[in-house]
Order: sequence, then structure tokens, then C-alpha cells
Amino acid sequence: MSVELVWSRYGKSSVRLVKVRRASDPHDVIDLTIDVSLEGAFEKVYTDGDNSACVATDTMKNTIYAFARRDPIDHVEAFASRLADHFSKKPGVSLAQIAAAEHPWTRLPADGRPHPHAFARAGEEDWTTVATRSAGRTSITSGLRGLVVLKTTDSAFAGFPRDEYTTLPEVRDRILATSITATWQYADGFTDFSARTGIRQAMVGAFAAHESESVQQTLYAMGAAALAACSGVTEILLSLPNRHHLLVDLKPFGLDNPNEIFVATDQPFGLIEARIKRMPT
Amino acid sequence: MSVELVWSRYGKSSVRLVKVRRASDPHDVIDLTIDVSLEGAFEKVYTDGDNSACVATDTMKNTIYAFARRDPIDHVEAFASRLADHFSKKPGVSLAQIAAAEHPWTRLPADGRPHPHAFARAGEEDWTTVATRSAGRTSITSGLRGLVVLKTTDSAFAGFPRDEYTTLPEVRDRILATSITATWQYADGFTDFSARTGIRQAMVGAFAAHESESVQQTLYAMGAAALAACSGVTEILLSLPNRHHLLVDLKPFGLDNPNEIFVATDQPFGLIEARIKRMPT
Amino acid sequence: MSVELVWSRYGKSSVRLVKVRRASDPHDVIDLTIDVSLEGAFEKVYTDGDNSACVATDTMKNTIYAFARRDPIDHVEAFASRLADHFSKKPGVSLAQIAAAEHPWTRLPADGRPHPHAFARAGEEDWTTVATRSAGRTSITSGLRGLVVLKTTDSAFAGFPRDEYTTLPEVRDRILATSITATWQYADGFTDFSARTGIRQAMVGAFAAHESESVQQTLYAMGAAALAACSGVTEILLSLPNRHHLLVDLKPFGLDNPNEIFVATDQPFGLIEARIKRMPT
Amino acid sequence: MSVELVWSRYGKSSVRLVKVRRASDPHDVIDLTIDVSLEGAFEKVYTDGDNSACVATDTMKNTIYAFARRDPIDHVEAFASRLADHFSKKPGVSLAQIAAAEHPWTRLPADGRPHPHAFARAGEEDWTTVATRSAGRTSITSGLRGLVVLKTTDSAFAGFPRDEYTTLPEVRDRILATSITATWQYADGFTDFSARTGIRQAMVGAFAAHESESVQQTLYAMGAAALAACSGVTEILLSLPNRHHLLVDLKPFGLDNPNEIFVATDQPFGLIEARIKRMPT
Repeated sequence: MSVELVWSRYGKSSVRLVKVRRASDPHDVIDLTIDVSLEGAFEKVYTDGDNSACVATDTMKNTIYAFARRDPIDHVEAFASRLADHFSKKPGVSLAQIAAAEHPWTRLPADGRPHPHAFARAGEEDWTTVATRSAGRTSITSGLRGLVVLKTTDSAFAGFPRDEYTTLPEVRDRILATSITATWQYADGFTDFSARTGIRQAMVGAFAAHESESVQQTLYAMGAAALAACSGVTEILLSLPNRHHLLVDLKPFGLDNPNEIFVATDQPFGLIEARIKRMPT
Repeated sequence: MSVELVWSRYGKSSVRLVKVRRASDPHDVIDLTIDVSLEGAFEKVYTDGDNSACVATDTMKNTIYAFARRDPIDHVEAFASRLADHFSKKPGVSLAQIAAAEHPWTRLPADGRPHPHAFARAGEEDWTTVATRSAGRTSITSGLRGLVVLKTTDSAFAGFPRDEYTTLPEVRDRILATSITATWQYADGFTDFSARTGIRQAMVGAFAAHESESVQQTLYAMGAAALAACSGVTEILLSLPNRHHLLVDLKPFGLDNPNEIFVATDQPFGLIEARIKRMPT
Repeated sequence: MSVELVWSRYGKSSVRLVKVRRASDPHDVIDLTIDVSLEGAFEKVYTDGDNSACVATDTMKNTIYAFARRDPIDHVEAFASRLADHFSKKPGVSLAQIAAAEHPWTRLPADGRPHPHAFARAGEEDWTTVATRSAGRTSITSGLRGLVVLKTTDSAFAGFPRDEYTTLPEVRDRILATSITATWQYADGFTDFSARTGIRQAMVGAFAAHESESVQQTLYAMGAAALAACSGVTEILLSLPNRHHLLVDLKPFGLDNPNEIFVATDQPFGLIEARIKRMPT
Repeated sequence: MSVELVWSRYGKSSVRLVKVRRASDPHDVIDLTIDVSLEGAFEKVYTDGDNSACVATDTMKNTIYAFARRDPIDHVEAFASRLADHFSKKPGVSLAQIAAAEHPWTRLPADGRPHPHAFARAGEEDWTTVATRSAGRTSITSGLRGLVVLKTTDSAFAGFPRDEYTTLPEVRDRILATSITATWQYADGFTDFSARTGIRQAMVGAFAAHESESVQQTLYAMGAAALAACSGVTEILLSLPNRHHLLVDLKPFGLDNPNEIFVATDQPFGLIEARIKRMPT
């Protein structure tokens, strides 16, 4: 029998980096979790135990901290891009990828104003970015995950096919809840990474305003809104779990339930995913 | 050998209840996870398999949903109290306890105003309450958990004893980060449960403003501030994990690190807990 | 307003310690997560920021690793006891508690025999111990958690009271599943900590053999079996979540369901707890 | 601006199914978590809110339970394949995928023999399978995840390149620990899904026996062993996080540390992944 290594990737995951910008008052906090991964001509590491081309993952971690000291980290996308560029130059590397999750902090209030050096975690939402350097080109995506939203009306699900296993009633008014994961691709050369705020607002606004016939249709509206909000975005991938809120049957207790009392369930859940692309004009 | 049941408790945990108040526009969302537990004369359930006094935990769940339909749920404390009262009247029950965690939602913005029926989860922070009914008296606590805060300066730790196992250097300036868990006891008959907001603000304000010599001292300042903020609170229990942010040694790379680059660690962590009580005047 | 510190506790949590005993072949692995906590005369730490009596939690961590090098760690109970003794002698300490969770590993098979230095994690089950040193006396408990068991028959739940909120049907045959958490107290001076194995077997055997009328009754049988298995155990606390397996209604699809197809649910869950004590003879 | 849906997928995730085979004594338990996903001509669902082709995810869930009642479920691979075939015939569907995770249970001992109807969860290890039906062809993979293994010797990491950010010392003897995730592809028409046991043993045996120069080299040995163990496997994907065990520096306490005392860390971690293929002979 003969076997062959057809693909490999390795790196360091979950490098936790907190940078305090304290040169000026007030302070800023940047809180990141970073993954490095490399692909390339590493066959002999696997087949022969020859580590001469194998950059230690510990070295990757050290490199992140050293770069973080020198780099102002204005936008995570640019920081990730510089790291990807650094690792792509190591012998044998054909692709270097830096994935970063930013954990946002908001200033605590003090006497009605934002405090200069005290912060609270803004929630479960992370801002994500992936910078991929390969064949002399850097590709950059941004995104978010863990943004949990819910609407109490303007959501229906009806008109779906019924077969011998269908029991779900049609509904014109239900709760729609999801945890948004979105990743959008920037055009080559795009650098205004402050675009994230407007893209996020556009998606959230579309979620709130949409008269929904399905999670699918709402997803599409959100994706289209994101593309409309920033001309530098070429496509967007959205992943929306349907966090079902089931109407509780209160009839056994002599009570009606006019869309008021729900049980929130974790499993099973619907999962709706799509990629939406800007068309050339 | 002879054995005896010396204590028992049973109930239903993690009942997920979402109530939409839709009578008027805009809608409100109340999102709760509720635990019921009972103590009492249940020995025969354990020793003889005699279930004649054993209220089914499924019945507890049903009761919560039925009560939620009838009850406006203005404050979770009052709702929990009414449930505790109901279960305390069941045969054999000597103590009925309702623990509730409220998961807050904030309105999404729409055209610069809060949206009437679209919401986002406010974060990982839960608001907690426990209503305990026993011997004709109801005791009520409120609290919060998962409020993650951080300050980039005004925190020191020095002057601690050094023994043969001590390697920690003294520091006058460090990051202080924690996830606040607080539970405060209301005086008998207290009913203004909107006090929560002011108590929370007082604790957070104390965290931000404190010139800290230790997590312990900051905890005490936060507890004292909570007691000062609401005269109806008789005591408060605070639990503060010390989420260590370690300064990264960049000297091997020819770089200094003027309190700027940190690694956030999960384990091990310090854990500081105390109960602080208002003294009779 | 005047406030007072009425109770406090502090320490280091989640110290991860792996010890390899390699003096002889085959190797042994001991994998522990340890929490240290101290109570005592620490008021001035909280109220005045005076750290002169405040043993640093970092020192606690160092002490654990140094003790682990010197101590053979034959039984975790004895190791925890030695650490509790050490910390109890620090100035101001009135109570020192060491809680340890042991994560068991089993030897991988190699050519039909246990491998001398390769291991697999045995599962989610942890073995726990708490050694508490106070007022010149050391109290020791052992236990386990995360032992998930299920029986497909010999479990009923019927004869419970029915009120206006009861919808649960009586059943004579159901799935009974739980995740066992148990903590037992050893008598003063007891030192044969290998008793754990027999106590565990007794509980598991009782779970399997019991003709159950309720989780409560099975809990009691398990506790009684544990006490019978080891005369050095004075009492045991058991906590058994009822991991409900709900029978799926297949009638809409023209199918019966003779106790065969179930949906396993996470929430809500019943929670049954009791403490059972050996009576003096 | 014009946008286009370029890819979409939807389905039901985390359908929890427990089947008890009780026709004969002893009982068997099959415990599965199943995800269904469909791709196809669903554009109008997204763009027009036209649900006429959108099989409800609730119907998917019902279908799983009904099939489970009729199907003996001898091997999960075959059960997943039948479900994939069913959904692939729905209008518009171009690809139907069933992913299943099996949670193994072992029989509890009773009087030295396996108990006929009482079980314990075997650990955190899941057995996985994915059946994909598309263009008239079904592709089947099997795998496992959560198999945590550790070896206390026969693991080195040296000879790696050193740059200005490298501080890691070379080591000839270290702990190697990982949580194995493996997915292997069966050749078309392969049906002997009991092969899983032998493939698992081969990988674990290779892990134990390998004189490792790196996680990469051990991964390759494990993959080659899996391919050698079953001629019906065409390729295997392995993902091995390096769960670092760091040697504790005990010199400050006047102690040596001859590879004996380690701190187990969660983050950051190395992550090594590769795909290994059988070559045509």
C-alpha cells in the first residue's frame, strides 16, 4: 500500500492578545483572539520528521505579540494583513492566513460621561476578520458572529409543501429569533475598514424592517442591505440558525395564548445559509 | 446498618419562558429561565416509592406557563414571589423556592429611534432573583451575573507577604478585569424592585472610580456603594473572579512593554468573595 | 450609613496540574484541577487596602506545583489534606480548603496489553475531593461528577398528585437517565481512600438493579448502597438531574411507538437532591 | 445595484434521537444527533418569499423519527444514507446531506457481567458519519471526534527553524496530548461499516507506538495506519490540536523538574491538519 499527503495546514490557534493604548487619555482597549495557519511545502515534516522548514507555532505566538507592540492596530484587518504578509515570506509557505476575532468593550459611564479607562464587555458579539496571503495577493474578509436578535411580529411561515411527515401548521405571525453570523469579502485594494459599522447597521435594520415570509427571505434582505451599504463589499455569506420559540398550549389550563407565552428552545434548530454576490453593472 | 434521609430538595430547573407583551405598541419581551425547588415532608417518596405527595416537576413547568399568561410580570421578583406562594401551599411543602434569571433585550435602532418590535440581546449579563417562601414568610434577593468589566489603570497589588513559594512581583499599575456576580437581600416587605438599576449603577461606578489596592478592596467598595444606593437592601454577596491579564515579556525581541501588551488568561484565576451588611444605626 | 464585612473567602481556582510518575516503567499520569480557598482575619485587606496578611493567589499556585514535586500523590485526598494543612498555618487563616477534581486516564491497549506510557481520557467523569482544615481538625469528602447513566426499563413514575396544572400521564415503563454527582463524608481519621472504587460500584450497581418508582427512590437506594459499601463513610449527598427522554408521538405518521423512539431533551430538567446519613447503631 | 444568490443551504440541525431496541433481551441503545441539509433550486424562497418548494425543517425532524421507527439502524451510515436518499427526491433538491453523531453507551457491570438494560456514557468521544446524495450518487464518510489521548514519552520537537521571534527550546522528550478528530471517505459501494472499530484501533495504536518528531509526523503515521487497516477507505482527514503541557519551572523553590510536573493549558494551542490518500497501485 502506498499513501500520499494531499493537503496539510498547521498553525497556532486562540492566541489571546489585549492591547492598551495609553499614550493619550482616555485609554483604548483592543481585545483579540488570533489564529495563524500556514500551508505549503511541508511534506517532509509529515513523512520524514524533518522539521527544518516547520516554523514553530510558539514562534507564531511570539510574533503576534511583538507585532502588536510595534503596530498601532487601528483596524484589525490591517494588522492581520501585516501578519499574513510576514508569515507568507517564510520558506516553503504558499498560503498564510490570519483569522482574528475582536471582542468589543464599551466605556462604562461615570457622572453621565464615558469613563476614560473603565470598560464593560459589550456582549457576546465578536467582530471577525480573515486575511489570506497567497500567490502575492492578500484577500480580506470581515464579519461578525454572536449578534442575537429577535422580532415579535412581522414574521410568517406558510405555503410550504406538505407531505406524509408534515405536521407544522401555517403561521402568519410568529417570533423570529436568530444569532447572526456574517462574513463579507472586500474587493482587492479596499482599505476603509471602518465600513464595518455601516454594514452591521444595514443588516440589523433590514432584519427589523423586513416583513418576513421565511428566515431565507429575511437573510436575503439582510445580505442585499449589506451589499448596498458598502460598495467595497463583493459578496457576503450569512448563516442564521432559527432559534425556535414555540407557542405554549395553555388550553389544558382553560387559558388562551394569543401569541404571548413561548418556550425558547435550543434543539433542534433550523439552519439557513446563503452567499449573495454583487452583480457587475 | 440503618440509614436516614436527613435533607432533600427537588424541583424543575431551566424552564425557558419568553413572554411578549403585545397589548399595546411597542411590544415588550420578557425572557426568563426559571428553577423551582421544594423541600418538605417527602421522606416516603425516597424510602417507600410513595409518590402521593410528590408534585410532578412537569406540573411545576405547566404552572409557570399558566401563571405567566395571567400575570403581567412587571417585576420578576413579584412573579417569582407569587409562584413561591403557590407551591408553598402544596401538602407537605415546608419551603418553596423560585430562582429566575432574566436575559435582557434592548430595542434595535430604526431610523434613529428604538424599534417597536425588534430587539437584540444586551449581552451575557443576566439579572437574577430568588424568592423563598417558608414558615409564612417570603424572602427576596435580586442580583446579576456575567457583567464583565475591566479597568486599564488605578489598580495595584503590593505589600503582600512573601514566603519561599512567592515569585509574584509587586505592581502599582495593572489591568483589573472581572465578571461580576452579585446577590443582594431585600428587607422584608420591600417591593420597589426597580431599585435594581440604581444598585447596578452604584457598583459599576465604584468599580470604575476606585483606586484599587486589591480585588478585595474594590469588592468592598462596590458592596458599600450598593448598600448606599438602596436603603431597602440589608446585605450583599459579591463574587469576583480575577481575570488575570499577564504582561507579555517582549525583551527577547528587543522590545519594551510599558503596560501595553497583555495575554488574557482563563486559568488559573483568583476568586474573591465577601458578604457585606448594613449595620443598624 | 455604616457597613460591615460579615464573611469573606478568597483563593486560587482552576490550577491545572499534570504529574507524570516516570521513576518506574510503566508511567502513571495524575491529572488534577485544584482550587484553594482561605477564610480568616482578612478584614483590613477589604476595608483598608492593607495586604500584609493577604497570601497572593499566585503564591498558592506555586505552592501546589512545589508540593506536587515532593509528594508522591498516592491518593488525592492525602495530597489535598497536606496542602490544606500548609495554608492553615499562615497568619490569620481560620479555614483552609483544597478542592480537587481528578480527571482519570486509562491506558491505551497495545498488542492486547495496557500500554506503558500511552493513555486515553476515560470520559467526562471526574473524581472530586475536598479537604477542609479548621480549628485543628481536617474534614475530608470524596465524590464524583459527570457519570452519565441510563436504564431502558425498570423505571416508573405514577401515583403523583394531580391538580389543575397536571398533564403528565402516569407511566410504568420509561427511560431513566441522569448525570450522577455524589459527595460523601469520611469519618475523622479515615485514611483508606481507595474506598472510592467500591463506593462508585455500589452506587452504579444500585442504579442498574433498582426497580424505580421515582428518581427520588433510586437516589435513596444509591445512597444507601454507598453507605453500606464503606463503613468509613458517615453521610452522602447525591444530586441527580432527570435527563428526560420523551416518547415521540408517531401517530400522525400512522406508526405506533412501543417505548422505542425518544427525543433526549436538555431543558427543562428535573433536579433531585438528598443527603443520607448512617445512623448510630 | 443588482445582487444574486450564488449559493444556499438549509435544514434542521441537532435532532436528538434515542432508539431502544427492546424486542429481544438484552436491550440496545442508539443515541444520535442528526443534521439534515439540502441544496437546490430554492432561489424563489430567498428572493420572492415563495415557500412552495421549501420543505419545512420541522418536516425533516418528523421524517427522522418516523424512519427511525421503521429502520433497524444497524449501522448509522446506512440509516443516514436512506434519509439522504429520501430527501434527495424532493422537488428542487440537488444535494441532500445527513450528518450524524453517535454517542456511544457501554453496559454497566452487574455481578461481573454486562447488565441487560443499564448503561453508562462511554465518554466524550462521538462517532460521526456524513451521507451525501447528489447527482444519483451517495458518498459516505465516517469518523470520530473527542477522543482525547496523551503519551508521556516518545515525543520530541527539535530541528525547527529559529528566527528573531523564536524562544522555544528544542526538546527530545515531552508530553504529547491531543483530541483526535478524524473523517475518512469510503469507496463507492462500500457497505461494511463495522470497519470503524478496526480503523479506530489502528489510529490509536499508531499514536501509542509512534516515536514522534512532531505532531505532524504522528498524524501522518495515524492516517497511514487507518488506510492500511481498511482497504475500503480512500482517504482520511485528521485534525489534531496540540494540547500543550508546559514544564513548570520549580527552580525558584530549590527543586528540579525531571519531566514530572506540568501545567495543562487550553490556549493558545497548535492545530495540525492533513488529508492523506491511498495511491492507486
